Amino acid sequence: MAIGVGIFGYGNLGRGVELAVAASPDMELRALFSRRDPSQLKTETAVQICRSENVAEWTDKLDVLVICGGSAFDLPEQTPRLASLFNVVDSFDTHANIPEHFSAVDKAARSSGKIAVISAGWDPGMFSLNRVYASSILPDGADYTFWGRGVSQGHSDAIRRIEGVVDARQYTVPVQAAVDAVRRGENPVFSARDKHTRECYVVAAEGADRERIEREIKTMKNYFDEYDTTVTFISQEELDRNHKGIPHGGRVIRTGKTAGGSDTVIEYSLKLDSNPEFTGGVLAACARAAARLAREGNTGCRTMLDIPPAYLSPLSGEELRAHLL
Amino acid sequence: MAIGVGIFGYGNLGRGVELAVAASPDMELRALFSRRDPSQLKTETAVQICRSENVAEWTDKLDVLVICGGSAFDLPEQTPRLASLFNVVDSFDTHANIPEHFSAVDKAARSSGKIAVISAGWDPGMFSLNRVYASSILPDGADYTFWGRGVSQGHSDAIRRIEGVVDARQYTVPVQAAVDAVRRGENPVFSARDKHTRECYVVAAEGADRERIEREIKTMKNYFDEYDTTVTFISQEELDRNHKGIPHGGRVIRTGKTAGGSDTVIEYSLKLDSNPEFTGGVLAACARAAARLAREGNTGCRTMLDIPPAYLSPLSGEELRAHLL
Repeated sequence: MAIGVGIFGYGNLGRGVELAVAASPDMELRALFSRRDPSQLKTETAVQICRSENVAEWTDKLDVLVICGGSAFDLPEQTPRLASLFNVVDSFDTHANIPEHFSAVDKAARSSGKIAVISAGWDPGMFSLNRVYASSILPDGADYTFWGRGVSQGHSDAIRRIEGVVDARQYTVPVQAAVDAVRRGENPVFSARDKHTRECYVVAAEGADRERIEREIKTMKNYFDEYDTTVTFISQEELDRNHKGIPHGGRVIRTGKTAGGSDTVIEYSLKLDSNPEFTGGVLAACARAAARLAREGNTGCRTMLDIPPAYLSPLSGEELRAHLL
Repeated sequence: MAIGVGIFGYGNLGRGVELAVAASPDMELRALFSRRDPSQLKTETAVQICRSENVAEWTDKLDVLVICGGSAFDLPEQTPRLASLFNVVDSFDTHANIPEHFSAVDKAARSSGKIAVISAGWDPGMFSLNRVYASSILPDGADYTFWGRGVSQGHSDAIRRIEGVVDARQYTVPVQAAVDAVRRGENPVFSARDKHTRECYVVAAEGADRERIEREIKTMKNYFDEYDTTVTFISQEELDRNHKGIPHGGRVIRTGKTAGGSDTVIEYSLKLDSNPEFTGGVLAACARAAARLAREGNTGCRTMLDIPPAYLSPLSGEELRAHLL
């Protein structure tokens, strides 16, 4: 029986999940929930569109609800609330606040008897998995995570919520000298600032106070305050022409020594022409895992670190052992 | 309480596990079992050395036994037998025979109420994990696994078991044109032969039939028959001088398109100056996971695909979420 999936929130990520779920033969996209007027929404599939305030009517009709809101303002409220009604998956990506978010969602999911998978995606998500695997198998070493060059949706979103901002794109850019030092096995010690710069392209409303906008961006906690950030104001036309794509990527490198003293380098890298479509693929796989965990009677909050890898795959254990192990 | 670990078999891999366990503060190396005379064995630590035929006396004294025999002849017999006495971990790496090995070990472990983790290491092992994650999150794509240039212990071991062979080293070498085609996103279709060559350096006994040895190597099923293999006979002195290290590595690349049609490349690579020491690190982490699974009352056979990543780490869930997620 196909896994019945709902999507809560329809931005770039919601669209990525919609496409990924629709392409998965073992899943069935049953409903899409949006704050916007259903008649105004242009979707990629013929999925039923519902108003988000009516989501509670669907408690018996969905196996998993994938929540596609933003980490800054939506998910801290939405995920605990919806975990009291559904098995849920989210992509909460404010690293510093994950323990707090986990705790709130875990409490809600335990008392409702549901499963919640939070912070799924590629970082947190695939990159986290690689950090944990690498540090477990090579304890004597150091981890280096580099992002980009690519558009951070969370950071772009955070800028767009500033008063007077019409539109924005934020590029995360790795500092090449830092990547080179890691690859040479120098085990350098970096601050956040040493490894990445942040480039912001911002469309301001007519008459908006650009100095205030720039200051609010550069001092935004967890998002920009620990980086060298450049803010460039451009027109909507220029943004649409030169910054429409949502590419991203990056790499997690762990260098170190085995217990016998032998040099070792472990590297994981992603090159993504569409960050939200790729993240949608990760969330769809996590929805599959959430449904399985729920069917087995598990409850409470999980991250990808807690999920057996086989649960993400549509293949059986026998098939995985025969073909992919 | 520290996890009590035993090691069964003391070759290069057993030594790698010994070093990795000794370096893990949450584990305690309690005994090492060898077919050889304990008085003749030179170990890296002050571990107690026992004869392998006395292993059954240790059933109540070990939380996990890591079995470090060869896949061709030792493990198919050792792992099921020892899984009826201990929680066990092995590195069975004959891909074609994994389903059969899994089934035999699962039966033994279920009836004894023990946990067994088989086929741990880097391939099968870390590379398998990456194949499963990548195919689950990017279903529309193709996987490419390249090994080397490096020494395959399993293949070297298989050559050494041929009559008339005194010593041997086998290098697995990726075909560069094949790697380049994958990186260009051409999604080529390869035979095993297209992707790798196998170079064998063999020390033959005086008077041994070198033609027969070369023929036995080149036609060995699962090991050499599907590859272009070169066999070079050299002296023991030359082998000791030029081929003493046991480096290895390789990469798993998945290229494909998201459900929305965007190009995506996922790549995982390892560069290992010592293959057995690195593999020892993986087995030690799997021993930790096996002990946890057993403490929770689980029984039967697992592979790394079935183990939540967090179980491999000495850190708690809280620590992982706060620092590595």
